[in-house]
Amino acid sequence: MALGASASLFLTLALPKVAAGAGQPAAAATSPVYGVRLPKGYRDWKLISVAQENGKNNDIRAILGNDIAVKAFRSGKRPFPDGTVIVRLAWRYQSSPRNDAVFPAPQSFVAGAPTNVQVSVKDSKRYVASGGWGYGQFENGHANQDEQLTRSCFACHTNLAQSADFVFTDYSR
Amino acid sequence: MALGASASLFLTLALPKVAAGAGQPAAAATSPVYGVRLPKGYRDWKLISVAQENGKNNDIRAILGNDIAVKAFRSGKRPFPDGTVIVRLAWRYQSSPRNDAVFPAPQSFVAGAPTNVQVSVKDSKRYVASGGWGYGQFENGHANQDEQLTRSCFACHTNLAQSADFVFTDYSR
Repeated sequence: MALGASASLFLTLALPKVAAGAGQPAAAATSPVYGVRLPKGYRDWKLISVAQENGKNNDIRAILGNDIAVKAFRSGKRPFPDGTVIVRLAWRYQSSPRNDAVFPAPQSFVAGAPTNVQVSVKDSKRYVASGGWGYGQFENGHANQDEQLTRSCFACHTNLAQSADFVFTDYSR
Repeated sequence: MALGASASLFLTLALPKVAAGAGQPAAAATSPVYGVRLPKGYRDWKLISVAQENGKNNDIRAILGNDIAVKAFRSGKRPFPDGTVIVRLAWRYQSSPRNDAVFPAPQSFVAGAPTNVQVSVKDSKRYVASGGWGYGQFENGHANQDEQLTRSCFACHTNLAQSADFVFTDYSR
Protein backbone atom coordinates (compact mmCIF):
# COMPACT_ATOMS: atom_id res chain seq x y z
CA MET A 1 0.00 0.00 0.00
CA ALA A 2 2.82 2.40 0.91
CA LEU A 3 4.47 1.59 -2.40
CA GLY A 4 1.18 2.17 -4.21
CA ALA A 5 0.72 5.64 -2.69
CA SER A 6 4.26 6.56 -3.54
CA ALA A 7 3.85 5.43 -7.12
CA SER A 8 0.61 7.37 -7.39
CA LEU A 9 2.29 10.54 -6.05
CA PHE A 10 5.11 10.08 -8.55
CA LEU A 11 2.65 9.80 -11.41
CA THR A 12 0.74 12.88 -10.26
CA LEU A 13 3.87 14.99 -10.05
CA ALA A 14 5.31 13.63 -13.24
CA LEU A 15 2.25 14.15 -15.42
CA PRO A 16 2.63 17.89 -16.08
CA LYS A 17 6.24 17.30 -17.13
CA VAL A 18 5.24 14.55 -19.53
CA ALA A 19 2.49 16.74 -20.94
CA ALA A 20 5.07 19.45 -21.77
CA GLY A 21 7.12 16.87 -23.66
CA ALA A 22 10.64 15.47 -23.34
CA GLY A 23 10.53 15.49 -19.55
CA GLN A 24 10.77 19.30 -19.43
CA PRO A 25 8.67 21.43 -17.08
CA ALA A 26 5.76 23.25 -18.69
CA ALA A 27 7.14 26.16 -20.74
CA ALA A 28 6.73 29.59 -19.19
CA ALA A 29 5.65 32.54 -21.29
CA THR A 30 6.80 35.32 -18.97
CA SER A 31 10.04 36.09 -17.18
CA PRO A 32 10.20 35.99 -13.38
CA VAL A 33 10.50 39.29 -11.48
CA TYR A 34 9.31 41.39 -14.46
CA GLY A 35 6.67 39.35 -16.26
CA VAL A 36 8.22 40.17 -19.66
CA ARG A 37 7.02 38.22 -22.71
CA LEU A 38 8.78 37.43 -25.97
CA PRO A 39 7.09 39.98 -28.26
CA LYS A 40 5.12 38.62 -31.22
CA GLY A 41 6.83 39.17 -34.56
CA TYR A 42 10.09 40.48 -33.07
CA ARG A 43 12.13 38.59 -35.68
CA ASP A 44 10.70 41.00 -38.28
CA TRP A 45 11.79 44.10 -36.37
CA LYS A 46 14.36 46.59 -37.59
CA LEU A 47 18.04 46.28 -36.84
CA ILE A 48 19.60 48.58 -34.23
CA SER A 49 23.13 47.17 -34.29
CA VAL A 50 25.31 44.08 -34.00
CA ALA A 51 27.92 42.99 -31.47
CA GLN A 52 30.11 40.07 -30.50
CA GLU A 53 30.93 38.67 -27.07
CA ASN A 54 33.90 36.48 -26.24
CA GLY A 55 34.38 34.69 -22.93
CA LYS A 56 31.63 32.55 -21.52
CA ASN A 57 29.05 33.93 -23.95
CA ASN A 58 31.10 33.29 -27.12
CA ASP A 59 28.32 34.65 -29.28
CA ILE A 60 27.55 36.99 -32.14
CA ARG A 61 24.42 39.06 -31.71
CA ALA A 62 21.92 41.34 -33.31
CA ILE A 63 19.86 43.96 -31.52
CA LEU A 64 16.41 44.63 -32.97
CA GLY A 65 13.79 47.10 -31.83
CA ASN A 66 10.10 47.82 -32.16
CA ASP A 67 9.10 51.04 -33.95
CA ILE A 68 9.17 53.11 -30.75
CA ALA A 69 12.69 51.87 -30.02
CA VAL A 70 13.97 52.47 -33.57
CA LYS A 71 12.57 56.00 -33.64
CA ALA A 72 14.26 56.83 -30.33
CA PHE A 73 17.56 55.24 -31.39
CA ARG A 74 17.59 57.13 -34.69
CA SER A 75 16.70 60.49 -33.18
CA GLY A 76 18.92 60.01 -30.12
CA LYS A 77 15.97 60.51 -27.74
CA ARG A 78 16.83 59.57 -24.14
CA PRO A 79 15.40 58.35 -21.89
CA PHE A 80 13.59 55.90 -24.15
CA PRO A 81 9.81 56.40 -24.18
CA ASP A 82 7.50 53.94 -22.47
CA GLY A 83 6.62 51.18 -24.91
CA THR A 84 10.19 50.81 -26.16
CA VAL A 85 11.08 47.15 -26.62
CA ILE A 86 14.63 46.05 -27.46
CA VAL A 87 15.36 42.44 -28.39
CA ARG A 88 18.86 41.02 -28.37
CA LEU A 89 19.27 37.79 -30.36
CA ALA A 90 22.47 35.77 -30.01
CA TRP A 91 24.00 32.82 -31.78
CA ARG A 92 27.12 30.73 -31.22
CA TYR A 93 30.12 32.62 -32.64
CA GLN A 94 31.76 30.12 -34.94
CA SER A 95 34.41 29.93 -37.61
CA SER A 96 33.19 29.22 -41.15
CA PRO A 97 35.48 26.73 -42.92
CA ARG A 98 33.22 27.02 -45.98
CA ASN A 99 33.75 30.77 -46.24
CA ASP A 100 37.43 30.52 -45.37
CA ALA A 101 37.93 28.15 -48.29
CA VAL A 102 36.63 30.88 -50.61
CA PHE A 103 38.21 33.95 -48.98
CA PRO A 104 41.88 34.84 -49.42
CA ALA A 105 42.65 33.88 -45.78
CA PRO A 106 40.93 32.22 -42.79
CA GLN A 107 38.96 35.12 -41.41
CA SER A 108 35.25 34.39 -41.47
CA PHE A 109 33.00 33.96 -38.43
CA VAL A 110 29.28 33.39 -38.67
CA ALA A 111 26.21 32.82 -36.54
CA GLY A 112 25.77 29.21 -35.39
CA ALA A 113 22.98 27.77 -33.28
CA PRO A 114 20.86 30.29 -31.38
CA THR A 115 21.78 30.67 -27.69
CA ASN A 116 19.15 32.92 -26.14
CA VAL A 117 17.05 36.00 -26.73
CA GLN A 118 16.98 38.83 -24.20
CA VAL A 119 14.18 41.35 -24.08
CA SER A 120 14.16 44.81 -22.47
CA VAL A 121 10.83 46.59 -22.03
CA LYS A 122 10.58 50.23 -21.02
CA ASP A 123 7.76 51.06 -18.62
CA SER A 124 8.81 53.83 -16.28
CA LYS A 125 5.89 53.24 -13.90
CA ARG A 126 5.77 49.45 -13.76
CA TYR A 127 9.54 49.02 -13.54
CA VAL A 128 10.40 52.03 -11.40
CA ALA A 129 12.64 49.91 -9.14
CA SER A 130 14.89 48.92 -12.07
CA GLY A 131 15.40 52.22 -13.85
CA GLY A 132 12.19 51.86 -15.84
CA TRP A 133 13.23 48.59 -17.51
CA GLY A 134 11.83 45.08 -17.29
CA TYR A 135 13.91 42.16 -18.50
CA GLY A 136 13.53 38.59 -19.66
CA GLN A 137 15.68 35.87 -21.18
CA PHE A 138 14.21 33.29 -23.53
CA GLU A 139 15.51 29.98 -24.84
CA ASN A 140 13.62 28.22 -27.63
CA GLY A 141 10.82 30.72 -27.16
CA HIS A 142 10.40 29.96 -23.44
CA ALA A 143 11.10 32.37 -20.59
CA ASN A 144 14.01 31.34 -18.42
CA GLN A 145 12.64 31.01 -14.88
CA ASP A 146 15.93 31.59 -13.06
CA GLU A 147 15.19 34.55 -10.83
CA GLN A 148 18.83 35.23 -10.01
CA LEU A 149 19.74 35.28 -13.71
CA THR A 150 16.84 37.62 -14.45
CA ARG A 151 17.83 39.99 -11.65
CA SER A 152 21.38 40.03 -13.02
CA CYS A 153 20.15 41.96 -16.09
CA PHE A 154 19.54 45.16 -14.19
CA ALA A 155 22.48 44.54 -11.86
CA CYS A 156 24.67 44.87 -14.98
CA HIS A 157 22.72 47.50 -16.95
CA THR A 158 22.61 49.81 -13.93
CA ASN A 159 26.38 50.23 -14.20
CA LEU A 160 25.91 52.07 -17.48
CA ALA A 161 25.50 55.83 -17.60
CA GLN A 162 22.02 57.12 -16.85
CA SER A 163 22.43 59.38 -19.90
CA ALA A 164 22.30 56.17 -22.01
CA ASP A 165 19.16 55.19 -20.09
CA PHE A 166 20.94 51.98 -19.00
CA VAL A 167 21.12 50.67 -22.59
CA PHE A 168 24.31 49.11 -23.99
CA THR A 169 23.59 49.49 -27.67
CA ASP A 170 24.18 52.51 -29.87
CA TYR A 171 22.43 52.72 -33.22
CA SER A 172 24.56 51.77 -36.24
CA ARG A 173 23.87 53.70 -39.42
CA MET B 1 45.48 81.82 -76.77
CA ALA B 2 46.72 78.24 -76.26
CA LEU B 3 46.92 78.92 -72.53
CA GLY B 4 43.42 80.40 -72.54
CA ALA B 5 41.94 77.36 -74.26
CA SER B 6 43.75 75.08 -71.86
CA ALA B 7 42.51 77.01 -68.83
CA SER B 8 39.00 76.96 -70.24
CA LEU B 9 39.17 73.22 -70.77
CA PHE B 10 40.44 72.81 -67.23
CA LEU B 11 37.54 74.81 -65.85
CA THR B 12 35.05 72.86 -67.91
CA LEU B 13 36.40 69.54 -66.67
CA ALA B 14 36.83 70.77 -63.12
CA LEU B 15 33.39 72.28 -62.71
CA PRO B 16 31.43 69.07 -62.11
CA LYS B 17 33.96 68.13 -59.42
CA VAL B 18 33.54 71.47 -57.67
CA ALA B 19 29.79 71.19 -57.94
CA ALA B 20 29.92 67.81 -56.16
CA GLY B 21 31.75 69.46 -53.27
CA ALA B 22 35.06 68.90 -51.49
CA GLY B 23 36.91 68.28 -54.76
CA GLN B 24 35.34 64.84 -55.11
CA PRO B 25 34.04 63.50 -58.41
CA ALA B 26 30.28 63.60 -58.79
CA ALA B 27 28.79 60.78 -56.72
CA ALA B 28 27.65 57.78 -58.74
CA ALA B 29 24.31 56.15 -58.01
CA THR B 30 24.95 52.85 -59.78
CA SER B 31 27.72 50.27 -59.66
CA PRO B 32 29.91 49.67 -62.72
CA VAL B 33 29.46 46.43 -64.67
CA TYR B 34 26.01 45.71 -63.16
CA GLY B 35 24.27 49.07 -62.75
CA VAL B 36 23.11 48.13 -59.24
CA ARG B 37 21.65 50.88 -57.01
CA LEU B 38 21.51 51.18 -53.24
CA PRO B 39 17.86 50.23 -52.63
CA LYS B 40 15.63 52.84 -51.01
CA GLY B 41 14.74 52.05 -47.40
CA TYR B 42 17.10 49.04 -47.12
CA ARG B 43 18.04 50.04 -43.56
CA ASP B 44 14.48 49.13 -42.54
CA TRP B 45 14.69 45.64 -44.04
CA LYS B 46 14.52 42.44 -42.05
CA LEU B 47 17.58 40.71 -40.67
CA ILE B 48 18.89 37.57 -42.37
CA SER B 49 21.97 37.00 -40.22
CA VAL B 50 25.16 38.49 -38.81
CA ALA B 51 28.84 37.71 -39.35
CA GLN B 52 32.31 38.93 -38.52
CA GLU B 53 35.39 39.16 -40.73
CA ASN B 54 38.95 39.42 -39.47
CA GLY B 55 41.93 40.15 -41.69
CA LYS B 56 41.89 43.15 -43.99
CA ASN B 57 38.16 43.64 -43.55
CA ASN B 58 38.18 43.65 -39.73
CA ASP B 59 34.46 44.25 -39.63
CA ILE B 60 31.24 43.09 -38.03
CA ARG B 61 28.30 42.84 -40.37
CA ALA B 62 24.58 42.42 -40.75
CA ILE B 63 22.83 40.94 -43.76
CA LEU B 64 19.36 42.34 -44.49
CA GLY B 65 16.95 41.37 -47.24
CA ASN B 66 13.90 42.66 -49.04
CA ASP B 67 10.65 40.73 -48.60
CA ILE B 68 11.36 38.42 -51.55
CA ALA B 69 14.75 37.58 -50.08
CA VAL B 70 13.44 37.00 -46.55
CA LYS B 71 10.67 34.72 -47.80
CA ALA B 72 13.17 32.63 -49.77
CA PHE B 73 15.66 32.49 -46.89
CA ARG B 74 12.97 31.39 -44.44
CA SER B 75 11.50 28.74 -46.70
CA GLY B 76 14.87 27.56 -48.00
CA LYS B 77 13.88 28.22 -51.62
CA ARG B 78 16.85 28.02 -54.01
CA PRO B 79 17.67 29.43 -56.43
CA PHE B 80 16.48 32.78 -55.13
CA PRO B 81 13.63 34.25 -57.20
CA ASP B 82 14.20 37.24 -59.45
CA GLY B 83 13.70 40.42 -57.47
CA THR B 84 15.65 39.12 -54.46
CA VAL B 85 17.85 41.86 -53.02
CA ILE B 86 20.37 41.14 -50.26
CA VAL B 87 22.19 44.00 -48.52
CA ARG B 88 25.30 43.43 -46.45
CA LEU B 89 26.14 46.29 -44.06
CA ALA B 90 29.53 46.34 -42.32
CA TRP B 91 31.10 48.38 -39.57
CA ARG B 92 34.57 48.48 -38.03
CA TYR B 93 34.92 45.59 -35.55
CA GLN B 94 36.06 47.27 -32.36
CA SER B 95 36.55 46.53 -28.69
CA SER B 96 34.19 48.31 -26.30
CA PRO B 97 36.06 49.56 -23.21
CA ARG B 98 32.76 50.93 -21.91
CA ASN B 99 31.08 47.52 -22.00
CA ASP B 100 34.19 45.74 -20.74
CA ALA B 101 34.17 47.96 -17.66
CA VAL B 102 30.68 46.67 -16.86
CA PHE B 103 31.08 43.02 -17.86
CA PRO B 104 32.89 40.48 -15.70
CA ALA B 105 35.82 40.33 -18.16
CA PRO B 106 37.09 42.14 -21.29
CA GLN B 107 35.03 40.44 -23.96
CA SER B 108 32.83 42.94 -25.77
CA PHE B 109 33.13 43.95 -29.41
CA VAL B 110 30.75 46.34 -31.11
CA ALA B 111 30.08 48.03 -34.43
CA GLY B 112 32.20 51.13 -35.03
CA ALA B 113 32.15 53.41 -38.06
CA PRO B 114 30.45 52.03 -41.16
CA THR B 115 32.84 50.67 -43.80
CA ASN B 116 30.74 49.84 -46.85
CA VAL B 117 27.45 48.37 -47.96
CA GLN B 118 27.34 45.59 -50.56
CA VAL B 119 24.22 44.83 -52.56
CA SER B 120 23.33 41.64 -54.46
CA VAL B 121 20.41 41.74 -56.88
CA LYS B 122 18.94 38.60 -58.44
CA ASP B 123 17.88 38.95 -62.06
CA SER B 124 18.45 35.69 -63.89
CA LYS B 125 18.03 37.29 -67.32
CA ARG B 126 19.93 40.54 -66.92
CA TYR B 127 22.83 38.97 -65.01
CA VAL B 128 23.03 35.65 -66.82
CA ALA B 129 26.83 35.96 -67.17
CA SER B 130 27.30 36.13 -63.38
CA GLY B 131 25.06 33.34 -62.14
CA GLY B 132 22.00 35.59 -62.14
CA TRP B 133 23.43 38.11 -59.67
CA GLY B 134 24.36 41.77 -60.06
CA TYR B 135 26.60 43.40 -57.47
CA GLY B 136 27.51 46.81 -56.13
CA GLN B 137 29.55 48.28 -53.30
CA PHE B 138 28.59 51.58 -51.71
CA GLU B 139 30.44 53.95 -49.42
CA ASN B 140 28.55 56.84 -47.82
CA GLY B 141 25.65 56.04 -50.10
CA HIS B 142 27.72 56.31 -53.29
CA ALA B 143 28.49 53.47 -55.67
CA ASN B 144 32.15 52.53 -55.76
CA GLN B 145 33.26 52.94 -59.38
CA ASP B 146 36.18 50.50 -59.23
CA GLU B 147 35.38 48.00 -61.97
CA GLN B 148 37.97 45.47 -60.81
CA LEU B 149 36.59 45.56 -57.27
CA THR B 150 33.06 45.13 -58.57
CA ARG B 151 34.02 42.18 -60.75
CA SER B 152 35.69 40.57 -57.72
CA CYS B 153 32.25 40.05 -56.13
CA PHE B 154 31.24 37.33 -58.54
CA ALA B 155 34.80 36.01 -58.79
CA CYS B 156 34.45 35.13 -55.09
CA HIS B 157 30.75 34.19 -54.93
CA THR B 158 31.14 31.80 -57.86
CA ASN B 159 33.34 29.59 -55.67
CA LEU B 160 30.34 28.79 -53.51
CA ALA B 161 28.12 25.82 -54.23
CA GLN B 162 25.50 26.35 -56.91
CA SER B 163 23.02 24.70 -54.51
CA ALA B 164 23.43 27.82 -52.33
CA ASP B 165 22.79 29.95 -55.43
CA PHE B 166 26.20 31.61 -54.86
CA VAL B 167 25.07 33.19 -51.58
CA PHE B 168 27.27 33.13 -48.46
CA THR B 169 24.63 33.77 -45.85
CA ASP B 170 22.35 31.24 -44.18
CA TYR B 171 19.26 32.47 -42.38
CA SER B 172 19.59 32.68 -38.58
CA ARG B 173 16.47 31.90 -36.59
